[in-house]
Amino acid sequence: MKLSETAWPEAESMDTDLAVLPVGSTEQHGPHAPLGTDVLTAEAVAEAGVAAHDEEVVLAPPIPVGVAEEHRHFAGTLWVSEDAFRAYVRETVESLVSHGWDRVVVVNGHGGNVAPLRELCARLTRDGTACAVPFTWFDAVDTETIEMGHGGPLETSLLRHVHPELVDESAFDTAAADGADSWGEWQSGTNLAYDTVEFSTNGTVGDPNESSEELGEELVAAASDQLSELLTAIAEREWTRRED
Amino acid sequence: MKLSETAWPEAESMDTDLAVLPVGSTEQHGPHAPLGTDVLTAEAVAEAGVAAHDEEVVLAPPIPVGVAEEHRHFAGTLWVSEDAFRAYVRETVESLVSHGWDRVVVVNGHGGNVAPLRELCARLTRDGTACAVPFTWFDAVDTETIEMGHGGPLETSLLRHVHPELVDESAFDTAAADGADSWGEWQSGTNLAYDTVEFSTNGTVGDPNESSEELGEELVAAASDQLSELLTAIAEREWTRRED
Amino acid sequence: MKLSETAWPEAESMDTDLAVLPVGSTEQHGPHAPLGTDVLTAEAVAEAGVAAHDEEVVLAPPIPVGVAEEHRHFAGTLWVSEDAFRAYVRETVESLVSHGWDRVVVVNGHGGNVAPLRELCARLTRDGTACAVPFTWFDAVDTETIEMGHGGPLETSLLRHVHPELVDESAFDTAAADGADSWGEWQSGTNLAYDTVEFSTNGTVGDPNESSEELGEELVAAASDQLSELLTAIAEREWTRRED
Amino acid sequence: MKLSETAWPEAESMDTDLAVLPVGSTEQHGPHAPLGTDVLTAEAVAEAGVAAHDEEVVLAPPIPVGVAEEHRHFAGTLWVSEDAFRAYVRETVESLVSHGWDRVVVVNGHGGNVAPLRELCARLTRDGTACAVPFTWFDAVDTETIEMGHGGPLETSLLRHVHPELVDESAFDTAAADGADSWGEWQSGTNLAYDTVEFSTNGTVGDPNESSEELGEELVAAASDQLSELLTAIAEREWTRRED
Amino acid sequence: MKLSETAWPEAESMDTDLAVLPVGSTEQHGPHAPLGTDVLTAEAVAEAGVAAHDEEVVLAPPIPVGVAEEHRHFAGTLWVSEDAFRAYVRETVESLVSHGWDRVVVVNGHGGNVAPLRELCARLTRDGTACAVPFTWFDAVDTETIEMGHGGPLETSLLRHVHPELVDESAFDTAAADGADSWGEWQSGTNLAYDTVEFSTNGTVGDPNESSEELGEELVAAASDQLSELLTAIAEREWTRRED
Amino acid sequence: MKLSETAWPEAESMDTDLAVLPVGSTEQHGPHAPLGTDVLTAEAVAEAGVAAHDEEVVLAPPIPVGVAEEHRHFAGTLWVSEDAFRAYVRETVESLVSHGWDRVVVVNGHGGNVAPLRELCARLTRDGTACAVPFTWFDAVDTETIEMGHGGPLETSLLRHVHPELVDESAFDTAAADGADSWGEWQSGTNLAYDTVEFSTNGTVGDPNESSEELGEELVAAASDQLSELLTAIAEREWTRRED
Repeated sequence: MKLSETAWPEAESMDTDLAVLPVGSTEQHGPHAPLGTDVLTAEAVAEAGVAAHDEEVVLAPPIPVGVAEEHRHFAGTLWVSEDAFRAYVRETVESLVSHGWDRVVVVNGHGGNVAPLRELCARLTRDGTACAVPFTWFDAVDTETIEMGHGGPLETSLLRHVHPELVDESAFDTAAADGADSWGEWQSGTNLAYDTVEFSTNGTVGDPNESSEELGEELVAAASDQLSELLTAIAEREWTRRED
Repeated sequence: MKLSETAWPEAESMDTDLAVLPVGSTEQHGPHAPLGTDVLTAEAVAEAGVAAHDEEVVLAPPIPVGVAEEHRHFAGTLWVSEDAFRAYVRETVESLVSHGWDRVVVVNGHGGNVAPLRELCARLTRDGTACAVPFTWFDAVDTETIEMGHGGPLETSLLRHVHPELVDESAFDTAAADGADSWGEWQSGTNLAYDTVEFSTNGTVGDPNESSEELGEELVAAASDQLSELLTAIAEREWTRRED
Repeated sequence: MKLSETAWPEAESMDTDLAVLPVGSTEQHGPHAPLGTDVLTAEAVAEAGVAAHDEEVVLAPPIPVGVAEEHRHFAGTLWVSEDAFRAYVRETVESLVSHGWDRVVVVNGHGGNVAPLRELCARLTRDGTACAVPFTWFDAVDTETIEMGHGGPLETSLLRHVHPELVDESAFDTAAADGADSWGEWQSGTNLAYDTVEFSTNGTVGDPNESSEELGEELVAAASDQLSELLTAIAEREWTRRED
Repeated sequence: MKLSETAWPEAESMDTDLAVLPVGSTEQHGPHAPLGTDVLTAEAVAEAGVAAHDEEVVLAPPIPVGVAEEHRHFAGTLWVSEDAFRAYVRETVESLVSHGWDRVVVVNGHGGNVAPLRELCARLTRDGTACAVPFTWFDAVDTETIEMGHGGPLETSLLRHVHPELVDESAFDTAAADGADSWGEWQSGTNLAYDTVEFSTNGTVGDPNESSEELGEELVAAASDQLSELLTAIAEREWTRRED
Repeated sequence: MKLSETAWPEAESMDTDLAVLPVGSTEQHGPHAPLGTDVLTAEAVAEAGVAAHDEEVVLAPPIPVGVAEEHRHFAGTLWVSEDAFRAYVRETVESLVSHGWDRVVVVNGHGGNVAPLRELCARLTRDGTACAVPFTWFDAVDTETIEMGHGGPLETSLLRHVHPELVDESAFDTAAADGADSWGEWQSGTNLAYDTVEFSTNGTVGDPNESSEELGEELVAAASDQLSELLTAIAEREWTRRED
Repeated sequence: MKLSETAWPEAESMDTDLAVLPVGSTEQHGPHAPLGTDVLTAEAVAEAGVAAHDEEVVLAPPIPVGVAEEHRHFAGTLWVSEDAFRAYVRETVESLVSHGWDRVVVVNGHGGNVAPLRELCARLTRDGTACAVPFTWFDAVDTETIEMGHGGPLETSLLRHVHPELVDESAFDTAAADGADSWGEWQSGTNLAYDTVEFSTNGTVGDPNESSEELGEELVAAASDQLSELLTAIAEREWTRRED
């Protein structure tokens, strides 16, 4: 059930304590993929996962701006600080909880959100506010043979499946030529680079020529399966909400 | 230009310092209108206004959760505190500014956001960070003959024009019967009611039977004209960005 | 009972749960009215209202500095941020509550305090901390024929009644000549001006020549009646304090 | 010059960079002295000191609520947290600075404010915002022979001089009988008591029978001399305001 | 029991509700004493006091950085703001409490920590979180004949006893020659100097030539006795932990 | 140069802009290893790395309490929130910077600190405050054949080398028997467990029987080499400190 498209009496009639909150980012994804990539992919995976799930699940609207300062040198990148992001997502989850939907999966499409989401979901769960867990789709699918990158094969494939009109295939070669092969600038187990521009001229990491609509379809299927399994695990997990 | 659908090189090529950021709310709008009403209407007005404007304008993605605690007794209402909202919107605006789009209109669709937006836009403007101004569409159109209400004639009309599939006309009579005639519970110039449930059984204020698709069309046209005029005024306004 | 002038045993003997907290501002009011206008008027109305009320009411000392950054271009204007103001007033109210005076009217004399007071009184009331409500005297009296302005007929009249020695009638003509007719600089339903200096050369809005001591007397009487009615409404209002 | 009673053009004409901000507290002072003692005494000393000083000094309105949680068990005591107090006073000082009055003495009448004022004045001074220094009148006068106490000889004397109508001499014996001889409950150089009620039944420390109007007059004279000397020292002190 | 050197099962077996948390500072102490003086002395006193005490006491690791901005002009001085310090120490105490050790003495070695520690221990105790009290060793020992100073006889003596290898006796004469005789720059009962450099060329206050290893031994003995007495007082003190 | 053991004139004479700040944690490490493991190992690696480095490096004192709430069910575990930790470490780094040591490696010994340190070092570096980078020793050494665990072979080996007296070999079998084989409870790429107790009965992960003093010696050598290489990289890195 998409919350945004539902009137409140129908929301009230939902017989579930499960909710999914998509969070993404609006940030550069190379010359070939749109700034909305991370929120569009999070939304697509969330919708597919909720649809694939056997039980009713509340689907909240996607939060479009995340922790993406690392991409700020590329025009159109939007971001907020970790503090503002954590507060905004946490309180949104708390409002879901107020209606009895206190087992919440935050479906995430952006690497920069991973650590802040882990921090806030731990807080919510330990406090007895919500049984909350982050789910980052590209950490859930088996991608041993292909590295995640940025605007690389994985993301571009998924986009080609769900929003083909937003992918510019004519820019793939440029993307690959001026992009990077791998993420970051590593020394002694730490990444010296805080900003993408330090290691990728056009913001791309990986070669989008390796993407395909078919791979995208497989990724959505795999991710939605994983999300559904996680929803089952969360539904059954032992956890007690704290009485005020 | 819709930022979410654009790759960064195109965003970089925009020859403008104007941006529009839609902000709404996901909250009850009676038994006949969807929880997403305020973000959908803000988005529709923002898109129409940007389209109607002569000059290029950057259009950011809509922020879906606002200050709506007053509606929390109705299922599906999402909200964040004023502090979280101000921080999230302010920093999103600051990221727009980082790309040179430092004259920003925040297009708003929700009454509860008005005061927080005024506070934060004042802060941004006085600090020399952004020339920012809130625009609440229903405060901009001439609605002398029809009160704003909540899920009332104005909002319902606008929705019937832009998202007719989300309006349930069969619930109009119920909405009117158990709704309220006017907003709040006033004594000595102050509203004693902090929550909608104190004065409206089903969350509606006003009679949606008075709505029409035609009125909705007129409202979008009027609001987009007003927004375009405001963009012109902001573009020409004397204001100096503070050097760091 | 004026708290400041009372020893604690007498305060303890008060048989009431009603308290009044005056808050004002120290800010420019044109060349003819003192910087303390808003706190002096709030205090005068609060005292008159408490005196007019049938039941015992605790009267706290007036808070003299509010949210008045908009007047900062005029010498002597003092202000704090909204955050500092909300925290200071909220905690002062909480200390009133600790003594059992948990139904509190915040009597306000300044437009810039209205939104912050609404926000914090809502917070206190929803949290079950206090049944708190703001009362802005010039929003409570019927002033259809005269606009509020700033240092205009209303405020100047009230001051001429309660502190005639602080009003400089010889500056009325100057005030009117270099002042503004109405507040702000409006476009598309939004006020483009964040600062008074943008639309009023000397800070005045309205013509103090239209003021009179008689009107001031009527205003105090009307405002104190309104305040007394509000105290009755608050005393009878259904509300439950949250147990810790 | 009392800011509250002055119109802005006169404030603008002040040829000084010196300002005095009185801060007090509204808190129990035994059965014989009013809750407003600390703000009334701070105000009296501030006015006398400004009057005694040779040069022009801006006098801000007194801030009536301070850090007084230790007295909360006695009815009528008001207080805010250290954080709220520091923020409110700091920003009030910053607004004084905005008009060029950047050498500020905070005249204090309450022991609980001493540490927070030291912390914030240090912050302001080190940041180059204001040359700010706290002045607590009873730390400035030579009172070797009489301990400060609380509602004791010193405070009661000063009150008897400046507000005799607020002192209840008939309660002196009660105050002394059920009060404490000295402040706190000491062990190993630390005070184990965080609240006055732990060591004084009626909140008094010291015997008000030892007070006199004559001593009050001497105290005001001594304190205003000390304040005037401090103003001279601050005016001459080497300190540079930081350019923004 | 030194927590850092103990495995958790032994910690669990402790039959006590008493804990000691040493806090110090890393800051200049003249040319003859190390930057770690205040944390080393706090640690030494804490260890001696715990050893001298009859009952079991948990000893937490020393916190090495405190509120020492006043010494920042001398190389190597580390410091954090009062806010960061209060939060860090408070939460460390809260974690001690979580294990049942809810009567906590914070053993302090630095003057700049005194006011922040008092503020946070009051907060913890009043909130029913911990029965917490600060103990500053040089306020606990009888030093009527010798002023505390900074890197003066007292601190230097204590160091010569516990860490003689870190004291440079050859620099004593320099320390005394370019140091100050007393702390601060006083006028009207207030210290005009916020920074040590304003009154001491090399950061020393007092003459370390007056120090001796013997005095150091006496100081540790006296301080540990005082600490042990305080632990007894705290153990017996009436105080109730608040149930969550 | 160990800052704690140095007097300020020697600190001032350091000809370097490099500093190392060890941060650890005081938390359970199974029945065989001390609560101080993570701060002791961080300190040992930091000292060895500074010693191994060719150029002068300032060594700050180790911060003993980190983000370790996940271990709170085991007695003696200390922790602070992420916010308090970030603030405390950030400001400590800022104080190092104030003396010109603005290239800082934060040497970390605890997994729970990794994300907060990354966040704050990014902030410091992007703001132009410090060129700061975290170094977590067990992420820097090549441990392909042995998983990190918790109180497992790696940590226990390192401890056996640097603090053999604190390791209880007699508890190794118990540790292994009631410990876990791997960290966490994984589903769909996310760890459902927020607390160690959910998957390890005694807090251990991995078998300490696989540890050895020899491996510990190798680990310190490898980690100090890595740290030295990182110091070289940071020293040479292009980065500009922001002028205030």
